[in-house]
Amino acid sequence: MEASALSQDAAPLFGRNPVLELLRAAARSVDEVAILAEGRGPALQELLTLARGRGVKVSYRTRDQLTAMAGTPHHQGVVARVAETTYATLDDILAVPAERREPAFFLALDRIQDPRNLGAVLRSADAAGVHGVVLPKHQAVGITPAAAKTAMGAVEHVPVARETNIVQVIETLKKESIWVMGTAAKGGQDPWSVDLTIPLCLVLGGEGDGLRPLVARTCDLLLTLPMRGKIGSLNVSAAATALCYEVVRQRTAGAKTP
Amino acid sequence: MEASALSQDAAPLFGRNPVLELLRAAARSVDEVAILAEGRGPALQELLTLARGRGVKVSYRTRDQLTAMAGTPHHQGVVARVAETTYATLDDILAVPAERREPAFFLALDRIQDPRNLGAVLRSADAAGVHGVVLPKHQAVGITPAAAKTAMGAVEHVPVARETNIVQVIETLKKESIWVMGTAAKGGQDPWSVDLTIPLCLVLGGEGDGLRPLVARTCDLLLTLPMRGKIGSLNVSAAATALCYEVVRQRTAGAKTP
Repeated sequence: MEASALSQDAAPLFGRNPVLELLRAAARSVDEVAILAEGRGPALQELLTLARGRGVKVSYRTRDQLTAMAGTPHHQGVVARVAETTYATLDDILAVPAERREPAFFLALDRIQDPRNLGAVLRSADAAGVHGVVLPKHQAVGITPAAAKTAMGAVEHVPVARETNIVQVIETLKKESIWVMGTAAKGGQDPWSVDLTIPLCLVLGGEGDGLRPLVARTCDLLLTLPMRGKIGSLNVSAAATALCYEVVRQRTAGAKTP
Repeated sequence: MEASALSQDAAPLFGRNPVLELLRAAARSVDEVAILAEGRGPALQELLTLARGRGVKVSYRTRDQLTAMAGTPHHQGVVARVAETTYATLDDILAVPAERREPAFFLALDRIQDPRNLGAVLRSADAAGVHGVVLPKHQAVGITPAAAKTAMGAVEHVPVARETNIVQVIETLKKESIWVMGTAAKGGQDPWSVDLTIPLCLVLGGEGDGLRPLVARTCDLLLTLPMRGKIGSLNVSAAATALCYEVVRQRTAGAKTP
């Protein structure tokens, strides 16, 4: 793993509410909760109970030690060390559809920058029953604590792989008879006019410019959600959610396929 | 307007990138950009050009004046005064469907707390062609600068009304022959099994507990997006996006209605 990703993944999370939320949502991703030794007041009681109940190691530190861990004095007496995320491999992910006896349902995310957007995509992916998510290793955010928090625990349930080259991933998926459907702000097909019950991978672009041209060209087809308003685009997690639920609709027994 | 809402709406936005993004997305909501008098370097040049190009007033201040405006010294030499949001009335919103010659398509949001969630809902609402959004006046976030920023300008396009009593709003809508469809984490109908081409208002709950019981009981029916994963709920803006696009799908010429 490259150094920049390592430092991102291992970043501490601090502050009473953020750590509390992290423990509620994704306790397994917490290595240790460090608490101000002289600060065992009622404000931290719920947090301590929760950490212990979920088997998270708790240690007591001085204010200076916490400041060093958090990299800021604004830690409110509590810092969580977040585990380095364990990523799945592409092969792990490719095995999931057969295990679940479902047609493949993957997401590939090309260069998302904002960890909250990534977390939001992962939460919706879990809700829609996505089998796995592929991220690029470079020039894209990984599963940082902020992403894990927004994902509300989905990082523990949806396997995420990081691959160097998204175009090669697309070629691999196509060889596995998986239809790769990119997204475009305009010019693509209405998602409801395309059969989404077949094995597929949806490919979404980053926040700025959508899919890179080479990535878009490598896809089998492009989907476009109609824009009925004045703003030309949806947030990437909103687009992912709308498309994933169109897949769910088409795959739900009794729903009409197009 | 009550004092708390006033102070929220009039909150300043500061920092180079936040102000730059606000100018790009929602320049009309900016009353004034104040810049450090001795700070007219290249870092602020793009911001200045953008503000002038969009007709936003620019003034020059001392560092202390900017700190007083921002309420913090971390303003990076630029503070934007954001206009108080002008809310629509319920009557304004009720007039929109006839103007557009479309069956009514409204959203009502019960007690959203996070301005980014509200902004994300508004951005998706614009994209889906929603006619208007109703928020509660109390115990809910209004259109703060953070909401406006996440909405990427949608607050300029989607009329938003604030009403004291959401239950009364629902009763009013029902008298106007608008179907009021609440959302529930479980127990409601699949959205694709319900006719969403009729005049309707979708009602979504806040981040924590969904709709309050009285609000849910007042709705004509409840919709539930199926959850295929391990996490029991979608983020409120994700749920809004998935449901709004199911409305778009059903209303798109040529798409099959259920």
